[in-house]
Amino acid sequence: MKIKGFRFSAVEAAIKKPGRLDLALIQSLTPATTSAVFTTNSVKAAPVLLSRDRVAKGPIRALLVNSGNANACTGKQGMEDALETTRLVARYLEMDEEEVLVASTGVIGVPLPMDRLTVALHPLVNSLADDAGLEVVAQAIMTTDTFPKMGSRQGTAEGKPYTIAGVAKGSGMIMPNMATMLAFVFTDAAVELEWLEQIFGSGCDLSFNAITVDGDTSTNDTALIMANGAAGNEPLGGHSPGGAEFVTLLNELLLSLAHQIVRDGEGATKFVTVTVTGALNDLQAKKGAMAIANSSLVKTAFYGQDANWGRILAAVGYSGVTVDQDQIDLLFDDVLMVKNGIFVGGDAETRGSEVLRRKEFCVTVELKLGMGCATVYTSDLSHDYVSINADYRT
Amino acid sequence: MKIKGFRFSAVEAAIKKPGRLDLALIQSLTPATTSAVFTTNSVKAAPVLLSRDRVAKGPIRALLVNSGNANACTGKQGMEDALETTRLVARYLEMDEEEVLVASTGVIGVPLPMDRLTVALHPLVNSLADDAGLEVVAQAIMTTDTFPKMGSRQGTAEGKPYTIAGVAKGSGMIMPNMATMLAFVFTDAAVELEWLEQIFGSGCDLSFNAITVDGDTSTNDTALIMANGAAGNEPLGGHSPGGAEFVTLLNELLLSLAHQIVRDGEGATKFVTVTVTGALNDLQAKKGAMAIANSSLVKTAFYGQDANWGRILAAVGYSGVTVDQDQIDLLFDDVLMVKNGIFVGGDAETRGSEVLRRKEFCVTVELKLGMGCATVYTSDLSHDYVSINADYRT
Repeated sequence: MKIKGFRFSAVEAAIKKPGRLDLALIQSLTPATTSAVFTTNSVKAAPVLLSRDRVAKGPIRALLVNSGNANACTGKQGMEDALETTRLVARYLEMDEEEVLVASTGVIGVPLPMDRLTVALHPLVNSLADDAGLEVVAQAIMTTDTFPKMGSRQGTAEGKPYTIAGVAKGSGMIMPNMATMLAFVFTDAAVELEWLEQIFGSGCDLSFNAITVDGDTSTNDTALIMANGAAGNEPLGGHSPGGAEFVTLLNELLLSLAHQIVRDGEGATKFVTVTVTGALNDLQAKKGAMAIANSSLVKTAFYGQDANWGRILAAVGYSGVTVDQDQIDLLFDDVLMVKNGIFVGGDAETRGSEVLRRKEFCVTVELKLGMGCATVYTSDLSHDYVSINADYRT
Repeated sequence: MKIKGFRFSAVEAAIKKPGRLDLALIQSLTPATTSAVFTTNSVKAAPVLLSRDRVAKGPIRALLVNSGNANACTGKQGMEDALETTRLVARYLEMDEEEVLVASTGVIGVPLPMDRLTVALHPLVNSLADDAGLEVVAQAIMTTDTFPKMGSRQGTAEGKPYTIAGVAKGSGMIMPNMATMLAFVFTDAAVELEWLEQIFGSGCDLSFNAITVDGDTSTNDTALIMANGAAGNEPLGGHSPGGAEFVTLLNELLLSLAHQIVRDGEGATKFVTVTVTGALNDLQAKKGAMAIANSSLVKTAFYGQDANWGRILAAVGYSGVTVDQDQIDLLFDDVLMVKNGIFVGGDAETRGSEVLRRKEFCVTVELKLGMGCATVYTSDLSHDYVSINADYRT
């Protein structure tokens, strides 16, 4: 996949096992308006700290990403290594090092293999000219992901066609440590910075911040959008005629990438959409939905295809959300299981179990207290999840 | 086990599978000063709502407990059933129904089998005279617990010997729903109500509120202490000479019961003590320790005997606790793994893995920011946990 004004390349730098791409470079031919959302984890990897500062300062022209090593918990050396890689990229591409971002995912606590990385930079930069397309980036950022995650949308602004395309990597655990979520979105549309930050932030809330596989937040999570304006439109903003379309396309793309991450969740056998409605406000609804989506008891019940509504009510109950237990309704897809806090009986058990046997289903909880609602996406908790995370090094 | 002025009995009421005690009665021969801590879940079972009101009103003379049915999410009928059982007990024992508490654990959303329960009450009351001892209560409250949980301590107040003894049930999931933690402590010491509430509350914080198996909070959790004064001492209070001893013994007993619950956690193969020190305050330390103890990633690593310090740092990081990532130390037992946020290298990996192979070990995280510290107790997350909770009904 090509996006006007961007060039993509990836190589094997021997950071991961042989035979796998693990170093990718994205160049924007013009400085790109860039917005990013980084991990809320207080323990932040060096590339997160560095890129956060640079995104705040101004337009970006290149992004270097490696998998196989997170460059996290690596102290001063880690920051120096991150700086050095951007310095080298800047020299090769003849730009300011401040215009280069870096992202890493993989093993924590191990210094970056700078020798192998620097050797690989030269062929990486050289192959930019061929522009291998976004596909190689999707592959190079995979860790234990079982498939590359990608998507794109086409739109027009003032009659000028543009593309929004993105890649993501998900809940792959990398030995010996943690899941990192990375998502990079590129568009040739011109977009006003302030508005981009606003719509990208809320788009991430509805997508990457609305998914959970195991409730852990990595030190390296990064979601980023670069808009380089190569489409030639006037920069899109809140009052642009094409603004609404751009937001819709962006949100669709982000949600698609987020769903791909859940579907590839470690050991996942189910894709579950959890909606809470009628909460006092949206924030409470999301808190309740996340409590359901993160509960080990609920997720093992999903895995066991057990229409276990009691665990779901309990999760909402302990979430800290205001509820009136005599008003709660609960549905599995369109099967009403609980009405006003009481199991409806009849054939609900049988019909509910049928829903749970589906590969994808919805859980809806109606609190009937206000107008707050939220939807989050989750997987089940399976034997394979335990195997992947317990036995990885044995 | 006997405690002066208390009588215990238990019968089979056919609420659980045949051959298992499932209904227990505790009578105090004199009104007992009673304090209790109930679930913080907003969805509360009828017996929790009823007992909470009655404990607030005054001394208690009897407690009826059933397993096999939680009487939760049962609406008005559930409350009427709970009231009716206490009414019957009160009539048999010739006391006011307000002096009778009730606790339930088991299936959620199914009405109590009142016919079987009321039939069983007569033999249950009759056998009180034999005082079978606390052991039968420990057995009757078991659900999927694999062993009964009990403990006792002996002390003296003004030279008068007294006993504190208690039972608990833990992280047994009962079809089809959730874990309920029940703990009942009985003492023949006389204790001032206000002080009892204070020391029992903080004792529970250090024990039952410092353990986690899967992070879920049940609708039925109840911890309760009854002090009937049969030992003949002047009521113990904050300024009593014997007060400190009583607190020590009580805390020891509560901690012992809490540890038994963790050891019998579903699928548990490890007993892990997690301590966070040097936090800004105790509350932050506990939040950090609980984040570690609840992390599915950390717990699967424990199960896999993987000295995976990165997941632990990440858990502290996302817990919301103030940290300086360049100051954190981490130890597995006495093996320093991370110093000032960086892996110490050398043979730490090997020695850390040796620690993780132990059946019991400590994880210590030193934040070096303040004087706050907290210790919590947890188990690992194993294949059996998933099996127990996923496959229970299949």
